Parts: sequence; structure tokens; C-alpha cells
Amino acid sequence: MAGLRPGEVVAEGLKDPDGPRLRVIGRIRTPWGPDDCPRNMGTARQRGGRFVVELDPDLGPALEGLAVGQPVILLYWMDRARRDLLRQSPRHIEGTRGTFALRSPNRPNSIGVATVVITALDPGDATLGIDAIDCYDDTPLIDIKPWTERADLPPGRDG
Amino acid sequence: MAGLRPGEVVAEGLKDPDGPRLRVIGRIRTPWGPDDCPRNMGTARQRGGRFVVELDPDLGPALEGLAVGQPVILLYWMDRARRDLLRQSPRHIEGTRGTFALRSPNRPNSIGVATVVITALDPGDATLGIDAIDCYDDTPLIDIKPWTERADLPPGRDG
Repeated sequence: MAGLRPGEVVAEGLKDPDGPRLRVIGRIRTPWGPDDCPRNMGTARQRGGRFVVELDPDLGPALEGLAVGQPVILLYWMDRARRDLLRQSPRHIEGTRGTFALRSPNRPNSIGVATVVITALDPGDATLGIDAIDCYDDTPLIDIKPWTERADLPPGRDG
Repeated sequence: MAGLRPGEVVAEGLKDPDGPRLRVIGRIRTPWGPDDCPRNMGTARQRGGRFVVELDPDLGPALEGLAVGQPVILLYWMDRARRDLLRQSPRHIEGTRGTFALRSPNRPNSIGVATVVITALDPGDATLGIDAIDCYDDTPLIDIKPWTERADLPPGRDG
């Protein structure tokens, strides 16, 4: 676990989570490791590469109804992050900011959310190609949801 | 737990999740219970009401940097859903569909995702007013993230 930077604030109460347990449903395969992972989706898309969601083989039937070209939301577990920071100081901002005002992996529940587009689909093989994503190779996958204007666009924005 | 509808498929391997544990960070207060909860965000916004995120009191400082009017993504835990369905038959569709092609609460990890707008903000009190949400009163909150065009708009859509 990384050390604290100046001004960062830890909440002792955030240690030892005692809520519901997740089930890892697969892995996200990307070209990135800790040394070269892009910091956001824009950069991941620019750099490009091969991005594949490998679901647990038993779960292939749960992909039926999705289509190539469709946007989906992936939820994944960033298993190297710290979970006890209330305020933090990412490299790209001055000073510190509250954890919930940042997309940092360091948060009480280290769940990443990204909207991607399906580029290939094989329910028989339980795999999904996607356009790009900014997480490490082998990141545990937690959920796949169809992206919808109604739930996922801020109100007042045109679809 | 609700019974199965015709054509629904269960995966035995989805029982007994053994992944990382979540920490519930607060509760979402809404006007809705199981009998009158809207089925989607559009209906929740139309019907309106009082919607408040009550964070655990210790976590107020983690809200600093958010602003009224800003869109945020809430992640929450739908604790009455079943987690073992591969194919399911929601009331609003004909036949069955794969779980990952639906926004149904019934999924391996019962995490809901909604994009809402902050209407009031009190880090000292660890509360957040939001425009609307389609979950039951007292739903466990898992995360708050700033919504960004880069991560949350499908590629090719204008911001």
C-alpha cells in the first residue's frame, strides 16, 4: 500500500469492511500494467490496443441480448488501491480533494466504472471485445450493464 | 427471494460469493418502498420527491470538492435482489434475456448505478441532496463519483 502524501486524511473507520461480499465474474485483459496504464479513458482510447472481457465460462448465457456496437458500463475491482482515504492528493491536482470528488481508485469501495463499446461478442466463449479501457491487465470484473440515456446521461443533456 | 419465472436460468456457481467485501458508506433516502418504487430514472424524475444521501458522519470530508449542480454517479447495493440468475424474464419484456443485457437488480453483484445531479451539499452534516433516484428508501450506498464526459459518455457522442 502506498504511503500518504502531505495533506491526505485517513479514516480509521474505513478499515475492515464488513458489508456484502462481491463475486468476481471474470477478468479484463488489457495491454497495461502499473508502469504504463493510462490515467483516463481518453488516453486509453488514443493509445488503443487489444481489450477483452473474459467472463467465467459458466456465465456466457448471461451475455445474450447484448450486441456489437452497443455501449455498456463495466464495473471492476481495483485490487491494489487503498480504501481508507477521506482526502487525497492525486498527482494531477494542486493540494487535496475529497475522495468522492475524484475518480481515483483509492476509495472506500475500489470499484471502477467505465462506459465502453462492444466490438466483438461471443456468448459461447463467454468473451466480449471492447473498444478500450484504462485498467491493468487481469483486473477483476464485477458487472456488465447496458448503458442507457435514461439512467446514465445527466438530466437536461440531450441524448 | 422471489421464485423463478418460465425460462429463467440459475447458475449454481453464483451462490456463496467469496470476493472482496464492500463497506456500506451511507444510505439513500427516497419516498419509495417495494410497492411503489418507479422502475427507472425517467419515472423517478417525473414523480419527484425528496431524495437525500446520508453518508456515515465520519465521511463528510470526502465530499469536499463536489458542487451543487454537478452530476455524480451513485453506486448502491440492492439488498433484496437474487444473485444467481443467468437469464431472466422481467415483466416489461417478452421471453427471457441474459442478465448482463438488463438493468435488473437481479445480477451476480447487486450494484445499482445511477447518474444524478447534486441539488444540495453539506459536508459538515455529511449529506447530499439529489434530483431523483429509483431505489427503495434506506438503500445502502457504496460509492459517489463525479460524472465525466470522458469516462461516462459512450465514445462518439458529443458532450
